[in-house]
Amino acid sequence: MSRPLSLVLLHLAALGALAPGPAGADEGMWTYDAFPSEQVGQKYGFVPSAEWLENARLASVRLANGCSGSFVSAEGLVLTNHHCVHECVEEISTPERDLVKDGFLARTRADERRCPALEVNQLVRISDVTARLRAATKGLSGQAFAKAERAENARIEQACQTSAALRCEVVTLYRGAIYQLYQYRRYQDVRLVFAPEFRIAFFGGDPDNFMFPRYDLDAAFVRVYDGGEPLQARNFFRWSPAGARPGELTFVSGNPGATDRDLTVAQLEDQRDAVLPDKLARYAELRGLLTGYQLLGPEQARTSNAELFYTENSFKVYRGMYGALEDRRFFRSLVEREEALKAGIAKDPALAKDSLPAFDQVARAVERGRALRDGYDFLEKGYHSGLFKKARALLRGAAERARPNEERLEEFRESALPETTLELFSEAPIHAQLEKLLLRHDLEKIRERLGPDHPAVKTLLGRDSPEEVAARAVDGTKLRDAAARRALWEGGAAAIAASKDPLLALARTADPAARAAREAWEDEVKAPLKQAHDRIAAARFALLGRSRYPDATFTLRLSYGAVQGWTEGGKEVPPFTTFGGAFERHTGRDPFALPPSWLARKGQLDPSTPFNLVTSNDITGGNSGSPMLNRDAQIVGLVFDGNIHSLGGDYGFDPALNRTVAVDSRAILEALSRIYGASDLVAELRRSAGKS
Amino acid sequence: MSRPLSLVLLHLAALGALAPGPAGADEGMWTYDAFPSEQVGQKYGFVPSAEWLENARLASVRLANGCSGSFVSAEGLVLTNHHCVHECVEEISTPERDLVKDGFLARTRADERRCPALEVNQLVRISDVTARLRAATKGLSGQAFAKAERAENARIEQACQTSAALRCEVVTLYRGAIYQLYQYRRYQDVRLVFAPEFRIAFFGGDPDNFMFPRYDLDAAFVRVYDGGEPLQARNFFRWSPAGARPGELTFVSGNPGATDRDLTVAQLEDQRDAVLPDKLARYAELRGLLTGYQLLGPEQARTSNAELFYTENSFKVYRGMYGALEDRRFFRSLVEREEALKAGIAKDPALAKDSLPAFDQVARAVERGRALRDGYDFLEKGYHSGLFKKARALLRGAAERARPNEERLEEFRESALPETTLELFSEAPIHAQLEKLLLRHDLEKIRERLGPDHPAVKTLLGRDSPEEVAARAVDGTKLRDAAARRALWEGGAAAIAASKDPLLALARTADPAARAAREAWEDEVKAPLKQAHDRIAAARFALLGRSRYPDATFTLRLSYGAVQGWTEGGKEVPPFTTFGGAFERHTGRDPFALPPSWLARKGQLDPSTPFNLVTSNDITGGNSGSPMLNRDAQIVGLVFDGNIHSLGGDYGFDPALNRTVAVDSRAILEALSRIYGASDLVAELRRSAGKS
Repeated sequence: MSRPLSLVLLHLAALGALAPGPAGADEGMWTYDAFPSEQVGQKYGFVPSAEWLENARLASVRLANGCSGSFVSAEGLVLTNHHCVHECVEEISTPERDLVKDGFLARTRADERRCPALEVNQLVRISDVTARLRAATKGLSGQAFAKAERAENARIEQACQTSAALRCEVVTLYRGAIYQLYQYRRYQDVRLVFAPEFRIAFFGGDPDNFMFPRYDLDAAFVRVYDGGEPLQARNFFRWSPAGARPGELTFVSGNPGATDRDLTVAQLEDQRDAVLPDKLARYAELRGLLTGYQLLGPEQARTSNAELFYTENSFKVYRGMYGALEDRRFFRSLVEREEALKAGIAKDPALAKDSLPAFDQVARAVERGRALRDGYDFLEKGYHSGLFKKARALLRGAAERARPNEERLEEFRESALPETTLELFSEAPIHAQLEKLLLRHDLEKIRERLGPDHPAVKTLLGRDSPEEVAARAVDGTKLRDAAARRALWEGGAAAIAASKDPLLALARTADPAARAAREAWEDEVKAPLKQAHDRIAAARFALLGRSRYPDATFTLRLSYGAVQGWTEGGKEVPPFTTFGGAFERHTGRDPFALPPSWLARKGQLDPSTPFNLVTSNDITGGNSGSPMLNRDAQIVGLVFDGNIHSLGGDYGFDPALNRTVAVDSRAILEALSRIYGASDLVAELRRSAGKS
Repeated sequence: MSRPLSLVLLHLAALGALAPGPAGADEGMWTYDAFPSEQVGQKYGFVPSAEWLENARLASVRLANGCSGSFVSAEGLVLTNHHCVHECVEEISTPERDLVKDGFLARTRADERRCPALEVNQLVRISDVTARLRAATKGLSGQAFAKAERAENARIEQACQTSAALRCEVVTLYRGAIYQLYQYRRYQDVRLVFAPEFRIAFFGGDPDNFMFPRYDLDAAFVRVYDGGEPLQARNFFRWSPAGARPGELTFVSGNPGATDRDLTVAQLEDQRDAVLPDKLARYAELRGLLTGYQLLGPEQARTSNAELFYTENSFKVYRGMYGALEDRRFFRSLVEREEALKAGIAKDPALAKDSLPAFDQVARAVERGRALRDGYDFLEKGYHSGLFKKARALLRGAAERARPNEERLEEFRESALPETTLELFSEAPIHAQLEKLLLRHDLEKIRERLGPDHPAVKTLLGRDSPEEVAARAVDGTKLRDAAARRALWEGGAAAIAASKDPLLALARTADPAARAAREAWEDEVKAPLKQAHDRIAAARFALLGRSRYPDATFTLRLSYGAVQGWTEGGKEVPPFTTFGGAFERHTGRDPFALPPSWLARKGQLDPSTPFNLVTSNDITGGNSGSPMLNRDAQIVGLVFDGNIHSLGGDYGFDPALNRTVAVDSRAILEALSRIYGASDLVAELRRSAGKS
């Protein structure tokens, strides 16, 4: 994968950002409480008001599975991507009715189908807790620091979370310069309203993923229920029937997952030379394995599609990220960015004394991480088998809930339990054959990486093969049954101790080494890294303040940009595609096969209807499903991807090349009307548009 | 994968080698005509004589499939590794009789089974042709240089190869400082005599591969026939019943495939940052795919075992190589090695003027290679389907044989035709289902890497999916039949043009773009690299002469060393394992399951029998099957692996850590006698031992 020269420009430009002032580019995933409205006004002649921002914040939602979405009607209707509900659609399918393949439309409220493990969060309040964290961790370092920080976070979250309908999270911004408490309204009764056929949701498949021109209806609607009734949503976005024009200002409101734009060079080198090449090989192998597994038959293919889809997607993401770091000129620009920051710090002796040694502390933690990573990555995080992870959650949940809240593993803190149990009690079917394959693979990889003579491996496998261990555990377990899991959870430590379930037994055998590996990682790598970054961030913050946006943290952000193509190899890539283009690209063979519904309605469609578009908004993974808005806060698009260049955006934003890819609002409306005959849904969107 | 510090030492030590003189370490894969006998004498008190060397050279053989071996009787018996004949054993198996699983022993000559595609080469003559090549390429560069060199090589080889029983190859040593003509006696009638069960040949499987302690009987015997009769071998090695003692001098005579110890830093960076990470991901995916394919059933597993085995082995090799380059301290030592060489060259103005600019020329060719690599790697080299490669050989063979010998693609030069056709006409069964899987995978990866809109991809696939294209070609082809392939080959261009075979048609469709990609690579990358290395090597050669060994070239080399363990993490790894250790490691589950034959005879075996051993000999891939000799040229071991550290040996040799792994001669004899009851074979080995 080669990368164009111009990617370098951005990072040279980014050095300019060390001096506060308006950034020239449409860069930034801004928090709502520090949105650079003035900057937008200067460039685009529109200044979003406080009311505009509050409405956009409350109409935006987060999907706990890693996506974004938005309310688009007063009746709790939420717009998101097909790929954000793909798992749900697969879970409510049966061997007789494959909804991933055929699509789904609920013609009445009663037909809406509950998604077993989907949680929707609405951000209702942000408050600053920096002073509390500073006080709690004052003078501490290493393990003591990490423990104190965890405990204070847990206390703050628990105090905030006065009911299961709330979700509270302490969010670390600017890598520790600011701590904020985010309070969400939590919704767990989420029902599928509409999902198109996979063929059109992901037309072009993996070959076209992260590419443009693109022709995907990667859209879905779900509805949030509250007390068994559709939620009365006070804030929602209206639908723009007109869409956006080239050059028009666009906003994207969503939850970018994670960026690494503040990593030090030592960490970037570690990503480039160790983390990413290893991830690429691991995802590539899993991808091959699942592809081979699908040969077993249509049922195996049906039940592993989502797993394969996510694996391929992850592989391509890591490939793009690796491609960015592996470009020597780009990497050099990142080195220069750090040098410029250090030079800025050095001018202030007090800052310098406190912050410059932190760069070495990061390097030492990275070095320590290299020694501890295999244990952590494989013993603790190496499980692709969802069933095994459920068994482990039961085991650990019993032990952890018996401990004081602030001392628990974070997924068992009171504030996290609703999400943990949603997943654990999900009624989604669990496919034994696939679970056996994944668990066997997981055990094989643990043995491969740590070696057959590693004590943890010997404990885990005994004298048996990974295949036997996986078969015995999966064939003999009762944990595929959600009621059995719920009973064990509710039975607590006594029930767990009494259980002879073989999968639980395996989790029990695996646990001491896994916990030790996690603890070592958290204490010896994560905590010192965090502490060092606190100091660097404090210095950067002292120089720049909130004129700069913080790295993404899967919390709500707003980005601004414009409808705009880019230049690739001397050629212009125009910003819009059309329905007509999709029919031209149709070969009849997957992944370039349009579904029968589209072929049948071809004559009724206007081929010039805009289908997908690109804008210069700065986004990353987690923004999937974000609404794309015009200055009137109307929906003009639905974000579902970035172009291939945007994958380097993890480390920096290139205004010349990085583009957000969205479904045009007109395409969604047209498809609902003319292809799917979803007249009630269209009427609901139009009704809401009129109301707001 | 972390690497120990001490690996760095070697490269710092290697700088010393810039000044001619005896190397302290047992480093080097020496050509027979420049073996440092004096150096060995100084260190070990034994100077191999000219006769010793001539006998060892003629008793050593090369297997054209990438392995080594040796004559061990006057009756044409050849000792090599099981993994060198694994493919043959799989090919002569049937669904009813799986010889990979059960092993094979021919009790009479008549029972010996011909290996369909195994060729044995015996090096009979080396002559210098440097002056001819220099004259032919004088003053030329780029395409013209490459063309002239190819043509002169072809002329020399053709003149030498006066019969199909000879194989002639111009070998480039010291990256162009010396050209030599190697003349081999070629044997294509090679029959399997003995192969043990896969379970003991590869006990410990992939987890133990490249590891030590080790317990593998990775040994096999084949017999070379000449004119339908066992070859009367004049030169062969006698068997040592006593084996070797710790510290004892050992020689390894074999054909190391390729090392990169003379690469420039620009090339090493390219390996580390682009070539190896990409290979790792590609082999990982193929590994996963084959693992998944094996789930289809025992027959699919049986017929894809060898493919999976080679894929896993390659993956581990690349992982080891990547681990070496990714170690920053080690890499720094390689940079320093180059700096020292440049400093040495700079002292001589004439050398400097000619050679120093060549480093930049290498860097430019590497840069060009980055742009051309995907096309070359995928369109030309991206096929794992052996059946597709056969179709392409037929297509190209017809076209190329019509051209003057020196202008042909190298695999169709007269000197190469015997090997090309041996593979092409092989009677080994071809499994349609596996071929379809591989061809589909190949086509998918071509599309993935180059993109669905690349003209070559559009030509290749049209509007069909990779799956359809592969199915149509493989289901419809007659080329699975060896006689059909032979007829097409013999029919030449007219037969090829007239054929409507769908696989041939696919090869025809693919060919223009593949040839163009290959030509671009050879002219714009390979040729300028070679030319630049000629100049660098000339300078290095002027400074050091043949006091240094050349990079490995899959030609016969002799290395010296001693039986010696190493220290790992402060612990001594002793040099020998025993039969008893194998029984201790036995769990009954693959890959740690001993075969029934071993379990049944456990009582008859002496548990203290040495099984595997390690020595400090310097080897690399291609040395598999090499005899390990004592000073009396008796076989004390059979090389089958290197330890994990030895994989970094591609770039440099570390005397503290790099170890050769061999089967002890005593283990082979003991197993033949007591487990396999191979009394005739044992008698033949004893008879020959007495004779020599």
